[in-house]
Amino acid sequence: MFESAELGHRINKAVYDTEVPPLRVALLDAQFDLAQSATFPVIILIGGVDGAGKGETVNLLNEWMDPRFIQVHAMGTPTDEERERPSMWRYWRALPPKGKVGVFFGSWYTAPIIQRVLGKSKASQLAQSIERINHFEKMLTAEGALIIKFWFHLSKEVQKKRLKSLEKNPKTRWRVTDTDWEHFHLYDKFRKVSEHTLRETSTAEAPWTVVEGTDAYYRGLTVGKILLEALRKRLDLPPPQPHLNVAPLQAPLDRLDVFDKLDMSQKLAKKTFDSALEKYQGKLNLLMRDPKFSKISLIAVFEGSDAGGKGGAIRRITAALDARHYQIIPVAAPTDEERAQPYLWRFWRHIPRKGGVTIFDRSWYGRVLVERVEKFCPEQDWMRAYSEINDFEEQLVVNNAVVVKFWLAITQDEQLRRFKARKEIGFKRFKITDDDWRNRDKWDEYEHAVCDMVDRTSTDIAPWVLVEGNDKNFARIKILKTLCQRVEAALKKQK
Amino acid sequence: MFESAELGHRINKAVYDTEVPPLRVALLDAQFDLAQSATFPVIILIGGVDGAGKGETVNLLNEWMDPRFIQVHAMGTPTDEERERPSMWRYWRALPPKGKVGVFFGSWYTAPIIQRVLGKSKASQLAQSIERINHFEKMLTAEGALIIKFWFHLSKEVQKKRLKSLEKNPKTRWRVTDTDWEHFHLYDKFRKVSEHTLRETSTAEAPWTVVEGTDAYYRGLTVGKILLEALRKRLDLPPPQPHLNVAPLQAPLDRLDVFDKLDMSQKLAKKTFDSALEKYQGKLNLLMRDPKFSKISLIAVFEGSDAGGKGGAIRRITAALDARHYQIIPVAAPTDEERAQPYLWRFWRHIPRKGGVTIFDRSWYGRVLVERVEKFCPEQDWMRAYSEINDFEEQLVVNNAVVVKFWLAITQDEQLRRFKARKEIGFKRFKITDDDWRNRDKWDEYEHAVCDMVDRTSTDIAPWVLVEGNDKNFARIKILKTLCQRVEAALKKQK
Repeated sequence: MFESAELGHRINKAVYDTEVPPLRVALLDAQFDLAQSATFPVIILIGGVDGAGKGETVNLLNEWMDPRFIQVHAMGTPTDEERERPSMWRYWRALPPKGKVGVFFGSWYTAPIIQRVLGKSKASQLAQSIERINHFEKMLTAEGALIIKFWFHLSKEVQKKRLKSLEKNPKTRWRVTDTDWEHFHLYDKFRKVSEHTLRETSTAEAPWTVVEGTDAYYRGLTVGKILLEALRKRLDLPPPQPHLNVAPLQAPLDRLDVFDKLDMSQKLAKKTFDSALEKYQGKLNLLMRDPKFSKISLIAVFEGSDAGGKGGAIRRITAALDARHYQIIPVAAPTDEERAQPYLWRFWRHIPRKGGVTIFDRSWYGRVLVERVEKFCPEQDWMRAYSEINDFEEQLVVNNAVVVKFWLAITQDEQLRRFKARKEIGFKRFKITDDDWRNRDKWDEYEHAVCDMVDRTSTDIAPWVLVEGNDKNFARIKILKTLCQRVEAALKKQK
Repeated sequence: MFESAELGHRINKAVYDTEVPPLRVALLDAQFDLAQSATFPVIILIGGVDGAGKGETVNLLNEWMDPRFIQVHAMGTPTDEERERPSMWRYWRALPPKGKVGVFFGSWYTAPIIQRVLGKSKASQLAQSIERINHFEKMLTAEGALIIKFWFHLSKEVQKKRLKSLEKNPKTRWRVTDTDWEHFHLYDKFRKVSEHTLRETSTAEAPWTVVEGTDAYYRGLTVGKILLEALRKRLDLPPPQPHLNVAPLQAPLDRLDVFDKLDMSQKLAKKTFDSALEKYQGKLNLLMRDPKFSKISLIAVFEGSDAGGKGGAIRRITAALDARHYQIIPVAAPTDEERAQPYLWRFWRHIPRKGGVTIFDRSWYGRVLVERVEKFCPEQDWMRAYSEINDFEEQLVVNNAVVVKFWLAITQDEQLRRFKARKEIGFKRFKITDDDWRNRDKWDEYEHAVCDMVDRTSTDIAPWVLVEGNDKNFARIKILKTLCQRVEAALKKQK
């Protein structure tokens, strides 16, 4: 991909000086329209060889664009905050919201390429990273993002000359670091690995543009014009029509599903419950205090029927935990800030560090439950969510998180009983709303959605646990016990 | 993904008998509409555990549907024709054209899953196969295909009972083979590997449906209904609007491109040419007769400007070859049969066996050259072609093909001279058409497309060779020499 960027492209100063002022006006106009419409975010990636003008280009963009709507993220060595989470966390955190431009100076491409060049990762690991990147960018595009990827290139000869001349000049000497020279000696390997990576990630929706970095005028004008073209085309494009080829998922003909196999009559007597509660809360508390727990994290997801008993079960867990170590994230309608991001963003932001516990009271599964049933998003969006969610959870588990997902199931009769009780008990009245009654009318649709969810997202590494919830005592102990088992197993794997 | 298919789903005979007749009528109607409109092909995949009714379901489909428009491909052990080509070749060969239904009984999923279960492949190889499959199905969907994937499942217990009872009955004993029992003993591994594979390949556009295979009525009716839903939804769907987020690829601002670096004045005197021709033709002939050539194949691609000298260069190669070993494929407008298939289909069909040579006089690159410039296909289609083509060539190379791609470049002046000469020389007059003159007017657009092509598809494993073609002698020797070098290098790698 680099042949065309080793030809010695240049633009003379006169052309540059004539073309830049109208270009800047047009870019500001486009940026203003973007901010006004706020219908999509713009993600600009800046990568390439050292000394090819990456930094200068970022400065140029900052100079040309309205600083209120552009944010540059220079991604260097990860902070400890970042190191203790999946590698993509830092990028999720920095994603621009709709209407804004995010410039990534150093991006999700940097580590996979550098690791491979330095011989610190295998070809198969690079392949895996490439696949993850393709999934990530595909998801971003599907969520509406405009992704523009620039790679700045210099031929080996030109790079050498440039580094030398920068070094000679006392004013610019500071810009050449040892790392630059180290990278230069790895030039051929770097060229090969990055060419491969660029080609495998140059898709129709997010193609790479390779820019020769030798001449600052050529480089700057090229980036500016491509950016303008991309913004203008996208701003003028009508929104895509939802279009999914395939037929809707269908419920089994005989209406038999996984819930029919649950023994909903299971109960635990008060006395057994009390001693079991003490036992498992104590055990959980001990497990959390195991020094090896600092190497893992726990993410517990609670989903279930309305009035299924999520809150009560969560309180039985947190009673066993140290308040400094856990966070409960109640998930309701997204905030404005969250709505301006891909739907998984609001969950990524709450991923715990190593040693932490996060309990989600409802979760990312809303996408394939309420959003599906209530038609809050088009079919194609929740259909792609199954694999996006599997990807997401895989990243958590790879980063040593224990992901435990509970579905609290109750029967329709039991739900009715609880709804009525809530209406009558003063302090519980706030817990029952018209929404609950409306959802109840869609029982079958929800059940169908839940079964599809279990079928498509119960994985080896993050299986669903169906909890028979008619008896609260039984449910609470099953949950505590499962948590203890899963955490214990994870600790055993740690050295 | 299998929990819901281990519940003992069944339908009673009375329901089945009532529902099947109208279902059959509706299926035939849908199939008729499909054949009439002939706007998309339908690809049905049948996979799953042994004894879960795969074969019976295929028979049922054959019985229910109009045999003129449905074709079943039972993919067993590959033939030697198939073994000597990339593993996907046999599936490409069998793809149904628009308007028809192709049923794959055993598919591109079979070998990757079985190999992994038997421990004959590594996890990373399975991951690679899964990625290839996802690319393949994405391409099929983008080309318009409707893909419906059924996986037939039985719980371990049920499968055991079933195999035993089939064995007991003398009438059905023949249906249980040793392989079936072998597979049964690997049940748990098979379940795990196939669950993983299904989940990773269950996309929004081509999701899997898992069907419990225990009860023939349930199984048959489920498949029939899902098939009908899928056909009806797709037939009633308006065609998708072309929609590509990104701006068109842009030519370099300074108009400098890879062709500017070619020394077009290079020449070879008649005498030097004659001896070089003899030398390299002789060498090529020897290389082809090397016994190790039976382990590789040669695919030479010729693209170039009109009147660039492709035909003459090809004749200088074939003069060195044994007529039994090579095939020349001149690529012009596609036939009706080819138009009813994904655009790569007509090239896949001509992939040589091991030991064979195929010369493409123009090629799959038409997609990103003439089809792009003349707007024969929407932007998003040729934009995705770059990576589809890279995928395709990678499969060829992995299968030991030497892929050599020549671009025959001539200057605009030289082209004019040749056009005029063709008009005047009687036997060459047929070689010049109005099209040639029209294309000449779009010289710049074609050059831009060629540069993008070189940038995006010149890979380590299949690089583009730019040939300075103003002097025919020079060009012909460069081509012959390159072929010799590439084949020689490939032979050296063979043991």
